[in-house]
Parts: sequence; structure tokens; C-alpha cells
Amino acid sequence: MTIYDISEKAGVSIATVSRVLNGSSSVSEKTRQKVLAVMEKYDYTPNAFARGLGLNTMNTIGILCPDSSDLYLAKAVYYIEQKLRDNHYDSLLCCTGYALENKQKCLNLLLSKKVDGIILVGSDFVNETFEENNYIREAAKDVPIMILNAVLDCPNVYGIVSDDYRSVYEATSALLSSGVKDILYFYNANTYSGKQKLSGYQAALKEYGLPVVPSLIQFYDGPHEDISAMIQALQDASKNGTAFHGVITSDDTLALAALKYAVQNNLKVPEDFSVIGYNNSFITVCCNPELTSIDNKPETLCGELIHMLMEVLSGNSVPSKTVFSGEIIKRGTTRF
Amino acid sequence: MTIYDISEKAGVSIATVSRVLNGSSSVSEKTRQKVLAVMEKYDYTPNAFARGLGLNTMNTIGILCPDSSDLYLAKAVYYIEQKLRDNHYDSLLCCTGYALENKQKCLNLLLSKKVDGIILVGSDFVNETFEENNYIREAAKDVPIMILNAVLDCPNVYGIVSDDYRSVYEATSALLSSGVKDILYFYNANTYSGKQKLSGYQAALKEYGLPVVPSLIQFYDGPHEDISAMIQALQDASKNGTAFHGVITSDDTLALAALKYAVQNNLKVPEDFSVIGYNNSFITVCCNPELTSIDNKPETLCGELIHMLMEVLSGNSVPSKTVFSGEIIKRGTTRF
Repeated sequence: MTIYDISEKAGVSIATVSRVLNGSSSVSEKTRQKVLAVMEKYDYTPNAFARGLGLNTMNTIGILCPDSSDLYLAKAVYYIEQKLRDNHYDSLLCCTGYALENKQKCLNLLLSKKVDGIILVGSDFVNETFEENNYIREAAKDVPIMILNAVLDCPNVYGIVSDDYRSVYEATSALLSSGVKDILYFYNANTYSGKQKLSGYQAALKEYGLPVVPSLIQFYDGPHEDISAMIQALQDASKNGTAFHGVITSDDTLALAALKYAVQNNLKVPEDFSVIGYNNSFITVCCNPELTSIDNKPETLCGELIHMLMEVLSGNSVPSKTVFSGEIIKRGTTRF
Repeated sequence: MTIYDISEKAGVSIATVSRVLNGSSSVSEKTRQKVLAVMEKYDYTPNAFARGLGLNTMNTIGILCPDSSDLYLAKAVYYIEQKLRDNHYDSLLCCTGYALENKQKCLNLLLSKKVDGIILVGSDFVNETFEENNYIREAAKDVPIMILNAVLDCPNVYGIVSDDYRSVYEATSALLSSGVKDILYFYNANTYSGKQKLSGYQAALKEYGLPVVPSLIQFYDGPHEDISAMIQALQDASKNGTAFHGVITSDDTLALAALKYAVQNNLKVPEDFSVIGYNNSFITVCCNPELTSIDNKPETLCGELIHMLMEVLSGNSVPSKTVFSGEIIKRGTTRF
């Protein structure tokens, strides 16, 4: 018996059940009595209530992350754990890899450890088909699920996302305005977030009355730290397709490869060739010139995610989707 | 009652108790009977035995890491989790931060989740004083503890280390041989591993009949991604102390800062100025010229660590300390 079942049987929302548990005055007495009656009937001891009584809770949150060696994800996990600690919560992290089967297994492992909530770090956890997301829906019947960088329409699941569409739209527009018209889009993920980014690139081109050229959209699916393979992919694109004098990427590592590609081909950056990365990670300041990149504010996102989780655990209602804007951080690889 | 207590009461080593549990034929019948008698007396059901019977075990290993946003540690965690999964073990990770209190708390959290073993990732977990390491000794009475990059002399604790002393000794010797005599050592940690590295630098200078100049040993204790602060520390060292034309660092980020310091001061690298980093991390190939760095083989170390843990959990005996050699990866910041 979960808070989900109670809401279903009482015919009210989960937020309302939470408010009842929390003793909120914004619930009518009639509704309150209905919810309490269902709880009594099914002998339900809710988590949040139990927490208030110091029962049945470990003050522990489970975190799933596909790959701790990914710079962006590792940083996000770091922020999330710090902020949980600030809120007197412990955290248990499972690195799942990218296979659905392992994601499911790890999620169940964390649930078996009686965590009070689950945080999914990164848009990789939300899949294409309805069935492939059932593992999240099932878990949401037990505990609240927070997703960083993706959304899933399901009760007790909350998405905190950066507006990746808008960020890439603005980066592409800025590059077009600075006079670079032949821009290649270089990306490595078809996740929720990945699709938003690609749409932003396409929308900006259309806005400027330019065609979307298929050969200028390059998907890289090699190992994610293999710079040589990324450079090779750009060399191949250059040989087979239309010329390009700018590259916008879905990730700073791809942008670093684009910068190295330019150096290898004696293209002056930013005079003859522009590059914009994504994530504003540490590697943007490792190279020369330093990389212009989109900061999607992971610390802000993670802070809000934990704030919302604490609200949910206290029985307060929060929006199911929260969107933040990114920001272009201008450095040496662009003329604007 | 733990395997540690049994070994104490039976007056035999933990390894012998393990061998008895594992039915090894290398234990004398007399010893075997003695150990079994103690177990019977205290009604002891050992973990390894229980595992064999499918009882009382979750096939889960707890991992502690101080900071998942540290490039080197994140990579190590990644290898460890992959290898655990290959061995059909799940893992639960806690990122502890650097405060002893939180390390203790996280360790106890993992023990409360009934993990079969604990892995401490990085030499930060082993402290200066005996008392500060009691939290590890206590935990080792319950489950085996594996430490990456540090050692602690205690039953049921196993250290897997890279020979940091030898690696820095060899790097310093190579730089001296290439004609750079005024080498600054730039480091950021006084851990077990940090001390080994510094000793290696000092030993190489002595070997070459050169004095160890205190102003050429620079400790950096600012934020670990603040390149500007690191460059400033080198500028200050240059103003206040002896001149230097080479820098050996305990970490690639410090080496990147040394390279940027050289560029800012119009020193040609490697002709007029040499730099050697440590960890052979991704950032070594982000800059230009690319960084010469010491590869301390984290994948090999982690592989051996898991191999040893599996042996311990099977009741086999393994060495309490295992040492691997590192290797200098030559790139563009050195003349050799």
C-alpha cells in the first residue's frame, strides 16, 4: 500500500494525500476525512508521517547515474550529494551503465534499501517507448522520483530541466549573426535532452531562412573520450559533404575535437572557424583558445531538484516540470 | 560475533578461519576442529558461508569516495563498479567529502545496508594518527576493507597501491637527465600517496647530488579546479624564490596550470620549460602541447582490487599490500 494507492482509492491527487499527512489547512475537512478513512481501512503508515514520528525512515536518498566518469554527470552527482547532506540526508549512489536491464536492477536495489526517494541523474533514464519507462512508473508508486534533465509524465515523478532547445537556438543564432552561415551540428546522444538541442539548431536555421542540410548534422557514436575518432568524423564530414566554418556541439569534448580539427587543417580560430561547446565543463579552459560553451547551470538545477524533493517529502505540492534557462559563456572560439 | 572475533578466540589468523569456511584442504584437521568448535560455541553464521547457502547476503559491495567530481576518483569508481558487475555484485556508493566525521557516517551507513565488503577509493581515507583510522579498523571486524592507493596495517584490510615514490623518482630523474636541473615540485595533498610522491622527488635530487631547495617545493591548498589560483601560486614562487625551468606535479590539473604559467611568461615549452603531470587523465590531451604525465594504471589497480576482494570473500588468503608500477607517458611538454 503506497501513497499512490491511497490517492487512487480516495479519488484525490497525491499532492492532496500529502497535504493531509502534513496537516495542511488548505484541504477541506471533507477531503481530509475521506483520505484518513482510506488510510485507516488499509492500515497505511505513510513515509512522511513515519518520518515525523522518527519511525521507519533512514533519511536516505537513492541516486542513479549512468556513468560516474562522465564529467557533467559526476559534477551533478557531487552537487546533489552536497545538498542532500546540507538537508541531513544520506545518499546511496548506483552507477548503472547505459543498459536498461541494469538501470532497472539498480533501481530495485535502491528500493530494497528503503530509500525515501530516488534521483535519476541525466536524461538517459527516460526511454523512447512507454514500456521502457515502466520501471520508473513502478518505482514512483513507492517513492518520489526526481529526474535531472528529462521529464516523464507520471504521478510522483518530477523533472528539472535546462532549456536545451533555447540554449542551442541562441548559440546558433549568435553564430549566424556573427557571419558564420555554414554551421555543422555535432552531437552524440538522442536522449530527451539531445533531441531538444538538435531542434534548437534546426529552428535557428529556419528563422534565418537557411536550409537544414542533412550532411551538416553529424552524429558521433564512438567512445566518448576518443578525441581522434571525433576528429576523424569531422574530417570525413568535410570530405563527403558541404563545407563548414563553424561547429556547434552537444558536449564540450566534441567541441574540443572540433577545435583540434581546425588546428590540424590550419584554420584560424575564431577568424576562419568558430566552435561552441555545451556544459561549460572544466575542459573549456584547458585548451587554447579557450572554448565558448553553454552553461546549463547544473548547480542551480541540482539545488532546485533537492529543494523540490524536500518539499515533496514534507507533503507539499510541487510542479511536475521545472525549466531553467542556460547561458552562453563567451571565450576564444567565437567572434561574438 | 565476526570472523575477526572467531580468529581471536580460536587463536588463528583470519585467513585460516576463511580457509576453514571455504573447506580448504590446506588447514590441519586439528586447527579445523578448533575453529569449528569456536564457531559452534558462539553460534556463528559467517557471511561467506551464508553466501554459499544463499543466505543473509545481498551480493552488494559498499564504495566510499571522497569526491565524485574529481576526474581520477570518478574514473576509478567507474572501473570498480564495472568489474563488480562482471562478478555479479551490485554496488552502493557514498561520496563522503573530506571531513572525517562524514567518512565515518557514510561507512556506518553502508554497513547498516548489510554490504559484503567495503572499498575505499583514494588515499584520503587513511589518516595521520592511529585514532583517526579506528573507523576503518572497526569496520574491518565486520567485512573486508579494500583500499585503493593507500595501506593500513590491520587484519582484514587490503591495500592496492601504485608505486608513487618510484614514479616521481623516475620522472624527476628523466627531467634531470634531459638537462633541467632547477625543478619545482608542485603538489596539493599530504596523503599517504602524496608523501610517497614528494619523497620520490627528493630522492632523485639527492641521487644527482643536488640540494633539496625548500622554496622549490610548493604546496597548493586552494580550490582544486581553480587554474588561476594555481598559476598565481607559481608566479609567487617565481618572485620569492629560486628560478625554475621545470615543474613536476602531483596531479594533471596542477600541470595544466604550470603549462599556462609558462605560456603567460613567454617560456617556450619544452625548449625552455618542462612540465610533467600525474594521473594521465583526459586533460593531458586537451592542451597544446599535450602534457607528459605519469600513468599510474587505475584500471589495472581496480581490476586487481576486485580480484582480491573476490578471493577474500571466497575465503582465500591474499596479500595485505599489493604494489604496481606506474609509467611515464611522453608527450609534448618534455624534451626526453
